[in-house]
Amino acid sequence: MAKFKIEDALSLRAGKNFQIDSVDASATPGFDGDKDELDARFTKYDDELYELQERLFANGRSYGEDAPAVLIVLQGMDTSGKGGAIRHVLSTFDPQGTTTVGFGKPTEEELEHDFLWRIRKHDPQPGQIVAFDRSHYEDVLIQRVHEWVDEEEVDRRIEAIRDYELDLTAKGVKVIKIFLHLSKEAQKENLLERTEREDKFWKYDPADVEERAYWDKYMAAYQDAIQRTDENYAPWYVIPTDNKKYARMALKFLIVDLLRHLDLEWPAPDFDPEVERQRIEDAD
Amino acid sequence: MAKFKIEDALSLRAGKNFQIDSVDASATPGFDGDKDELDARFTKYDDELYELQERLFANGRSYGEDAPAVLIVLQGMDTSGKGGAIRHVLSTFDPQGTTTVGFGKPTEEELEHDFLWRIRKHDPQPGQIVAFDRSHYEDVLIQRVHEWVDEEEVDRRIEAIRDYELDLTAKGVKVIKIFLHLSKEAQKENLLERTEREDKFWKYDPADVEERAYWDKYMAAYQDAIQRTDENYAPWYVIPTDNKKYARMALKFLIVDLLRHLDLEWPAPDFDPEVERQRIEDAD
Repeated sequence: MAKFKIEDALSLRAGKNFQIDSVDASATPGFDGDKDELDARFTKYDDELYELQERLFANGRSYGEDAPAVLIVLQGMDTSGKGGAIRHVLSTFDPQGTTTVGFGKPTEEELEHDFLWRIRKHDPQPGQIVAFDRSHYEDVLIQRVHEWVDEEEVDRRIEAIRDYELDLTAKGVKVIKIFLHLSKEAQKENLLERTEREDKFWKYDPADVEERAYWDKYMAAYQDAIQRTDENYAPWYVIPTDNKKYARMALKFLIVDLLRHLDLEWPAPDFDPEVERQRIEDAD
Repeated sequence: MAKFKIEDALSLRAGKNFQIDSVDASATPGFDGDKDELDARFTKYDDELYELQERLFANGRSYGEDAPAVLIVLQGMDTSGKGGAIRHVLSTFDPQGTTTVGFGKPTEEELEHDFLWRIRKHDPQPGQIVAFDRSHYEDVLIQRVHEWVDEEEVDRRIEAIRDYELDLTAKGVKVIKIFLHLSKEAQKENLLERTEREDKFWKYDPADVEERAYWDKYMAAYQDAIQRTDENYAPWYVIPTDNKKYARMALKFLIVDLLRHLDLEWPAPDFDPEVERQRIEDAD
């Protein structure tokens, strides 16, 4: 039986030749257990994750600019569960070391600046993990799909995104990008649920229905953006998301792998432990 | 056997006649079980808490300025576990609706402004929960203890704090203030641990030892600040904290009570569910 391992999550890497049609959004690659097994699997690395994040945070505190940071970019169609995925994965962490930034419709002030202006305000600081719920990719997705920008501008933005992610990397920020890939059919079920449940009404936006008419254009825009910006220093992973719990598990396993590869030690003491123990004893 | 109930947490209210000597920092009022019972008790309200916070967030989204918000102020001596308490309580919540702000030593820019300048940047927005790890109270605690400000200035600041908290209340922010009350003996143990454990070194600050010489002055400053700023609209709770798990449980129960009293319904739909279901069905 397939139990889902970190390698299974890593196998969701998109790559330069990514074809969106090759991903079945309703599948659960690497996992064939039931819901209970999924729940158990989901928490497998929680203790390790907690320590990995604290170690990162501690390095930020002790070494400042020399410590790494992490940026998690989450993209997905409406109702793909970006918010829930972030919540479930980041809740393991110390909120003092983690920030979630949601990017909605740009404000007037934001529109007066280059599209990366509002993004770069949130560059992850040393020791920090930042998650983007939507991101700079919206500027080559919704804007392209609706033809609010021409193809020349799309090309310029793709280059600017590549430069930006390379710049982050040069500053010690590990970048990981996730596309939560939902099927059109599953989105329909999710939208219907929002019209049926009292606790979901507030999430329903009638405009989401109109957006469904652009589904195929969105998929083409995703495929192109992913192909052109998937790099080893800023990889894309495409996670089948009709099964939300599977998607959250895969996301979490990818974060475990990323944090492990930072390969951080606890900071060395910047004091003499013996001397300090004596000072503490003498202080009373 | 005392199981710890919400009323037990509420009984930790300080009040206008608060005497710090009357609180035993090593006690666990209302609870006499063991560690396992404490762990079980700690998660008792998690599902409810999660829903209460989502409801608050949903109200913020749907009703904007008319929705309430929450400010949790956490104070305590070094090593009292403010960060851990915030993490353990807030991890139940959606990070998109919760922010933790730590206030360290003021920067030069901050010192050029009134002491509330850096605080008011973080006024909770509708639907949001903000936790302060240290706060405006430092300006009448550390600064008073070290006599960096005279008593006249302390009086002025206390009045400014009262005005600020009243202003927040008028804007729909529910304010709750927590003093995590650690004994001097327990702090010593915590400091020693930080000189002994590899994963704790980064938390050790030699300056904390010097601060211990001011312990009694700190307690007097806490007592005075609490007495003068405890109001029904901005109450202080003093939680014995030598047992950290107990303190976290008490904090969590206080938050449950506070959120329950917001008495929020799920927002009503701002659309016609029947019409929207038909639109969704027709869209394909």
